[in-house]
Amino acid sequence: MNTLYRPELLYSDGRLMSNGELLVSETGKILEISEKTNDSSTRVVDLPGKALLPGFVNAHSHSFQRLIRGKSESRLASGSDFWSWRGTMYHAANRLDPQDVYDVARMAFLEMVLTGTTTVGEFHYLHNAPDGKPYEDPNLLAKQVLAAARSVGICIVLLRTAYLRSGFNLPRDSGQIRFFESRSAFLENMDALIQEFRNVFEVSFGVAPHSVRAVPLSDLKEIVGWNRALNLPLHMHISEQVAENAACVREYGLAPVALLNRERILDANFTGVHAIHIDPNEIDMLAEANATICACPTTERNLGDGIFPADCVLNAGIRVALGSDSQAQIEPLEDARQLDYHLRLQRQKRTILDQIAAKPLATTLFECATIHGARSLGLHCGELKPGANADFFTVDLSDPSIAGNSADDLLSILVFSLNRSAVHDVVVNGRIILQDRRHPLHDEIVARYQEVHHKVWRTERLL
Amino acid sequence: MNTLYRPELLYSDGRLMSNGELLVSETGKILEISEKTNDSSTRVVDLPGKALLPGFVNAHSHSFQRLIRGKSESRLASGSDFWSWRGTMYHAANRLDPQDVYDVARMAFLEMVLTGTTTVGEFHYLHNAPDGKPYEDPNLLAKQVLAAARSVGICIVLLRTAYLRSGFNLPRDSGQIRFFESRSAFLENMDALIQEFRNVFEVSFGVAPHSVRAVPLSDLKEIVGWNRALNLPLHMHISEQVAENAACVREYGLAPVALLNRERILDANFTGVHAIHIDPNEIDMLAEANATICACPTTERNLGDGIFPADCVLNAGIRVALGSDSQAQIEPLEDARQLDYHLRLQRQKRTILDQIAAKPLATTLFECATIHGARSLGLHCGELKPGANADFFTVDLSDPSIAGNSADDLLSILVFSLNRSAVHDVVVNGRIILQDRRHPLHDEIVARYQEVHHKVWRTERLL
Repeated sequence: MNTLYRPELLYSDGRLMSNGELLVSETGKILEISEKTNDSSTRVVDLPGKALLPGFVNAHSHSFQRLIRGKSESRLASGSDFWSWRGTMYHAANRLDPQDVYDVARMAFLEMVLTGTTTVGEFHYLHNAPDGKPYEDPNLLAKQVLAAARSVGICIVLLRTAYLRSGFNLPRDSGQIRFFESRSAFLENMDALIQEFRNVFEVSFGVAPHSVRAVPLSDLKEIVGWNRALNLPLHMHISEQVAENAACVREYGLAPVALLNRERILDANFTGVHAIHIDPNEIDMLAEANATICACPTTERNLGDGIFPADCVLNAGIRVALGSDSQAQIEPLEDARQLDYHLRLQRQKRTILDQIAAKPLATTLFECATIHGARSLGLHCGELKPGANADFFTVDLSDPSIAGNSADDLLSILVFSLNRSAVHDVVVNGRIILQDRRHPLHDEIVARYQEVHHKVWRTERLL
Repeated sequence: MNTLYRPELLYSDGRLMSNGELLVSETGKILEISEKTNDSSTRVVDLPGKALLPGFVNAHSHSFQRLIRGKSESRLASGSDFWSWRGTMYHAANRLDPQDVYDVARMAFLEMVLTGTTTVGEFHYLHNAPDGKPYEDPNLLAKQVLAAARSVGICIVLLRTAYLRSGFNLPRDSGQIRFFESRSAFLENMDALIQEFRNVFEVSFGVAPHSVRAVPLSDLKEIVGWNRALNLPLHMHISEQVAENAACVREYGLAPVALLNRERILDANFTGVHAIHIDPNEIDMLAEANATICACPTTERNLGDGIFPADCVLNAGIRVALGSDSQAQIEPLEDARQLDYHLRLQRQKRTILDQIAAKPLATTLFECATIHGARSLGLHCGELKPGANADFFTVDLSDPSIAGNSADDLLSILVFSLNRSAVHDVVVNGRIILQDRRHPLHDEIVARYQEVHHKVWRTERLL
């Protein structure tokens, strides 16, 4: 039976409309979006006092990093830069058994759902046992993350990561031994995983060469070539830190984006994650290739990465997706608004990203949190259009963070001020996974997570 | 009867302790904080699974600006700088009748309580009727704001504002006609208000010359002199925008802080709000005078004011309080964490404010949100010590934003990741005003506010 959702306000194409209706098929696809088309053979869900919007797409997540929330905010524990922070992160990564990986991922995914997120792109590089050897099933940990997503009900794209070395002319870092595979093992494992989940609708895959640091160019070219037939999304960290660019120049004589451009690796399947330290030529290259950039502002401010040049990037016509990355916070619209806010701090002007492609600022930022993420992950979601997955959430229009609103101003109020307390219901592929702010597995997920936290942090000092 | 609160974790002096207890008198004062002192003549409130912390002090609020949330995030509506934003704000200010002022203030104060805020410093400059004439009671609107605070149950310090002119050599701006008083009217009205509320415990007052722009130096000196006997907190906007500094230099040959220093206006009662564009000499002057600075990072990023130099200020020993200011967001710990985060973006380093005065970063930021605000407002709250007001809140330790915690790391997790969904109970002066996340007047406050929003924004285009 089809279901007809009748919210007070319905998002459609960058604006909210009164009296809109959303018709969803039994198979979880959007059939129609319209102003009051009625059909007596459908189940009707009235949503008075609610607005219905496409679910957020979190295009870059490392779920296990939820464990370091609050653990790296002191110099005594984690030093004072990105590289010493990474030591804390490795410490957590190296203590997790397969059950822990599942428990921590469920915690992160539950919190995403509570914020209205319906899809996660999980950039997964935790492959081996703590001793650095592959598990009997080398995809065990990837499957734990997939199982966590399915338990919570969030749609997942597993971006399986190739992590082949510590860096140019560097010995293997013992903190990274759970990440390493050979190129051939990576391709073999990737292939096996894709085959195994071929018929699972809410699970899909992408290829994720970790970075130019961790994947030598010759291997990268092989992986990219391997993917030409599959046409999967291809995600890579690029230009998050100045030191990373400098190392790439030392090895190849070019910065990462310029190198990838020369090697014809940039294309419409490519998403560069961070891309903070890129120059105007590199922006042109990414635009020309029709690539996406995934920004992660709440993480980038936490890690001291720098300010993402969102105006130059968006003005060049590049799609910007968003990711919660390190899980310092899981707040999709906080990420979105920071695209503009960090430029405001830098330029001492307001509404920097307004009227790009003639769109209001709130629409541009909301699209970064939704449809551009969907495009980056190769999915048809993040918008309410016929044929798209029925992935959406509702907000309570009387929540104090957004109270006082109308169809005209709600989107702007949401983008700049929404608190998760307003998120009421979440639907993925037509299935309700959060109802009246409550997930059925909430208590179990939190209790299990608390146990993992205790186990990992029993020993207090790290460095 | 005394009440003994027994939470799982209790905040005391910058850290959390297990098995701590808080004893509160019938009159709402803290009597004792200790590890397990038991007394059979007291009412016992067990709080398993909760942490108990001092309530946040919001030292700089313009409650009516809650109305412009989401209304100024487009160039078409509000231009692209601070000064054109101000036009939107004046538009809202000029449409409010006394009932509206009450309704909007209640909305803002309710949201503050939902985030764990127990005290607000309301910088109140809306004095006159819409035609610019004083109401029959020239304190009518101030009393509406006080009534709103008392209705919600939040403790308030009304910082009554002197707004005497539009600026140096400027004609009166018609957008400001509700703000203007003469100096003598200001002092008379201030005096009458203080007398009338002399015996109301949860209401107190401060003096707030709006800025060097809006108060000529001769008047400022009179007001400051008048306050010497009363010894009230004295708050002023200073150095929020570069243009404001430049105007001060044109008029007096000095930037605002240097001018106030020369005139001996800076002292321990003085709080300068914003203080973004100040130089090292001015920082020394504020430190020497034992003055406070109130930063408002969520507003300052929204308005494109610039990055507050928190490291220089805190390293000089200056107390930093925090304010929600324009109410773009009401998130005390988001303000707190931005003190460090905005410097991280600028410097590409982490934990910039860690180990100042040998304190962990989270403690320093938490104290900005609590005890430094209390000091700025002349109150004894913001800490859990014998003799202080029993103003505190509890958090649910299993909330997904902070789940996975211990006494050792909870404060850092709270400061960097707390969502208001974790705030469970709020107590002001020993009285429970939020219980199990619910305020008794919630629905009425939101419904009334929605009506005001509709009335004010009926006409859509502003500029």
